[in-house]
Amino acid sequence: MNGAESLVRSLIASGVDTCFTNPGTSEMHFVAALDHVPGMRSVLALFEGVATGAADGYWRMSGKPACTLLHLGPGLANGIANLHNAKKAGSGVVNIVGEHAETHRALDAPLMSDIEGLARPVSHWVHTSVSAADVGRDGAAAVTAARQAPGQVATLILPSDTAWTDGGPVTEAEAPDARTSIDAATMEQAARALSGPDSLLLLGGAALEADTLEMAGKISAQTGCALLSEWANARQERGAGRVAVNRVPYPIDAALDVLSKFKRIVLVGARAPIGFFAYPGKPAHLTAPGTEIIALADAGGDLVAALDGLMQETGAAGVTPAHVSDRAQVTVPSGPTEPRSIASAIAATLPENAIVVDEAITTGRAFFPATHGAAPHSWLNNCGGSIGYGLPVAIGAAVAQPDRKVLAMIGDGSAMYTVQSLWTMAREGLDVTVLIFANKTYQILRGELTNVGVGNPGPRAIDMLSLDRPALNWVDMARGMGVEAERVDEATDLARAIKAGLSSGGPYLIEVTC
Amino acid sequence: MNGAESLVRSLIASGVDTCFTNPGTSEMHFVAALDHVPGMRSVLALFEGVATGAADGYWRMSGKPACTLLHLGPGLANGIANLHNAKKAGSGVVNIVGEHAETHRALDAPLMSDIEGLARPVSHWVHTSVSAADVGRDGAAAVTAARQAPGQVATLILPSDTAWTDGGPVTEAEAPDARTSIDAATMEQAARALSGPDSLLLLGGAALEADTLEMAGKISAQTGCALLSEWANARQERGAGRVAVNRVPYPIDAALDVLSKFKRIVLVGARAPIGFFAYPGKPAHLTAPGTEIIALADAGGDLVAALDGLMQETGAAGVTPAHVSDRAQVTVPSGPTEPRSIASAIAATLPENAIVVDEAITTGRAFFPATHGAAPHSWLNNCGGSIGYGLPVAIGAAVAQPDRKVLAMIGDGSAMYTVQSLWTMAREGLDVTVLIFANKTYQILRGELTNVGVGNPGPRAIDMLSLDRPALNWVDMARGMGVEAERVDEATDLARAIKAGLSSGGPYLIEVTC
Repeated sequence: MNGAESLVRSLIASGVDTCFTNPGTSEMHFVAALDHVPGMRSVLALFEGVATGAADGYWRMSGKPACTLLHLGPGLANGIANLHNAKKAGSGVVNIVGEHAETHRALDAPLMSDIEGLARPVSHWVHTSVSAADVGRDGAAAVTAARQAPGQVATLILPSDTAWTDGGPVTEAEAPDARTSIDAATMEQAARALSGPDSLLLLGGAALEADTLEMAGKISAQTGCALLSEWANARQERGAGRVAVNRVPYPIDAALDVLSKFKRIVLVGARAPIGFFAYPGKPAHLTAPGTEIIALADAGGDLVAALDGLMQETGAAGVTPAHVSDRAQVTVPSGPTEPRSIASAIAATLPENAIVVDEAITTGRAFFPATHGAAPHSWLNNCGGSIGYGLPVAIGAAVAQPDRKVLAMIGDGSAMYTVQSLWTMAREGLDVTVLIFANKTYQILRGELTNVGVGNPGPRAIDMLSLDRPALNWVDMARGMGVEAERVDEATDLARAIKAGLSSGGPYLIEVTC
Repeated sequence: MNGAESLVRSLIASGVDTCFTNPGTSEMHFVAALDHVPGMRSVLALFEGVATGAADGYWRMSGKPACTLLHLGPGLANGIANLHNAKKAGSGVVNIVGEHAETHRALDAPLMSDIEGLARPVSHWVHTSVSAADVGRDGAAAVTAARQAPGQVATLILPSDTAWTDGGPVTEAEAPDARTSIDAATMEQAARALSGPDSLLLLGGAALEADTLEMAGKISAQTGCALLSEWANARQERGAGRVAVNRVPYPIDAALDVLSKFKRIVLVGARAPIGFFAYPGKPAHLTAPGTEIIALADAGGDLVAALDGLMQETGAAGVTPAHVSDRAQVTVPSGPTEPRSIASAIAATLPENAIVVDEAITTGRAFFPATHGAAPHSWLNNCGGSIGYGLPVAIGAAVAQPDRKVLAMIGDGSAMYTVQSLWTMAREGLDVTVLIFANKTYQILRGELTNVGVGNPGPRAIDMLSLDRPALNWVDMARGMGVEAERVDEATDLARAIKAGLSSGGPYLIEVTC
């Protein structure tokens, strides 16, 4: 058993059963081991950002790390943007990055680069194996690291000689450390703070699961506090029968307005709200001056214990939760596809237990409030802000939960960064319906020009944010990668197309004119 | 004049007149400045690896750095693979990377990352501007750094507050340092070493221009030494009337065989040959044991002086150069498109003064020797080994030299990494004919499985290197991005299609079945 095989067997023994891969020469022994050793599903991507984003989505829906297989420093580099997003989402990912044999590194071969240096900014844990005997143990340690709450990015660098030399024992990962426990004094302070509509319980991470949301709903019913979540959440359970929680808005003026109401904010799995960017003359902290902020539990904390404790301290355990969404019957208006009519079409067609991947950016701001009363579903946001996350995350979500339907809602600008995802969806026959919102511009940047104080952008600036010369034809691109596709520009037709896509059982792309 | 404008004006004053851009919020003031200030052509890319690869190609054909405009750490990350290639090619590139305002960085906003950490592995020079007053000077310093021989990657990180605050003076870059001069004793040693067919003059970098090649041809004629270039060259001038220089082969056994003949090797702009990868049981140094290697000049050295000196020392100045290619009349055979017939079609149609971007990988190994006698042209290789370099480099080459025709020869696997390039070609109306070699596999890795000792790969390993499920339809993908396209599977039809593409005046894609 060579090092590569000891690694594959250790990953499998540690519960890692899925590998999103784009290999090269230095990873050929790992590829061969995947062939010999049963138990690992290998999903090929044609660009590494697809593989890393898929691993992010896989963790969000399975709670287990997948591994990626990446080719040396440049292969890792192509995956960094989505590892950044995964890291910010608290997703556990194990990267296996090939490296030259030790004797070869000193020679500065063409593909030589500082892999550890590239990995560190997006990894909680980085290690280069030094001998084949250690590789299995190193793989298990990577899995242990990836599982630490809320989930971490672990990067194991595998020199090719440690892959092809005789390996050591197969090793299992250790259980992760317990989530951080809740401080009793902070709990008392938090429970006192939640009183009336000028107090806010701000939720994030694992506080947005169905059970924890129900606890939050009870606390709100009992204390009168408001509930909000962060703008971007790795996964939020929602829809009819669940406690509805709105998000702090992205546009800074709207966020300042919403948060100005609150004198006391208790954080459970969330961070104190800050601006996505700095804007001239606007505050970075979005809460009103003097707001009392009580950090009860961060994303790695025991959020069930935090909410259960608040429930007990406020006497909310027996009450009926507030803000539970009723099932809404939505009529889709006829007429052109624009944000509100699109929102209706989505709300009307979203199937029970769907997974919604939201990278709809400007077009999608109406979608979230419009779907509080849709069938119960999971909603996934981009937590790191690097666009191009949505199509890959949809792959990972579909691989993790093949019995659920995935609806990926993606802006045209965003979709282009990782457009290669469509091919992997076709290859794996994934049950993903992709909506591409073709507004033919980096629309968000039009607003941001104003926000940063550029009052009157000229034609060359506007042109640099425009995607309409030439217009992208998403139907052609999707078919070119083996995905069936159509274009719609009318809302009831969009509802029909979404139903067709969802019932196709495989990937289906709808270009939505907007 | 704010910092952003002082930067744009300083870049223009320093001779930087082209910006390959994919901006975000933190770069909006730079975008606004590009609008107000004349003199900078802005070329939008839909993925950052397109922008950085284009800057590489631009340098190779113009000898001037272009700048890139990238959005924070993840935007830089998406450009790293092609910056790696640019760095290994000795291309000068100035990256402008937006960053959060200083006050915002401490807050760990979603897009916060260690930009300097990401930049360092692929940059010779990294600097974060600390005040708006310095930004113009910092931009000029970046250009100075980029121009250092043979060409360097310089990354300037621009916090948004330094862009929007009042800026300092417009500053011009300094002239680069002179190229490293040649050591007289080494010159004597080198001249003595070049004697007979068991001596080799190994060329790289600026030693592959038409004039320097002619000197090398004279030296070869006079001394009987062989001429070779490195496997990958940033730019080699070749074709009829020029001194033909073959490349050290990529496959390790072929390279060992070719190099085993030589007892003495003089390096001019090249490095001593090493394997692209380490292979079990094979040497890393590709020269025969005991070979005398004389490093006369590295890529940053004064290669004209090195070759002129050798010419004088060997008495070759007055002789007729050896290895000058005659114009070859090529007949394209009828029959299916396979490597040799494709090579004939290329050799027969290559127009005078074309720029050939070679990322044809396995399919293309026959193309280089077959085109020694084609019309004079420039030939560009991938020096860093990270695939996905070809389409972006073709963009940069076409922008730098709009009067020349670009032929981009790309493997299907490689082309997918930066497929977004096609849209930029369409938008800018670039005169690029793209050949996609659709062998529907990572064919090179099939060979590498054997080379690293995996004798009998199983079906799952083979499947992980296969791109045929589903087959990519390049005609659809190209049209989806606004590029006219066709598919050919017959060699004389390929010759016709290449002529049609080259005479179209704009981008044209040909999917070549192989």
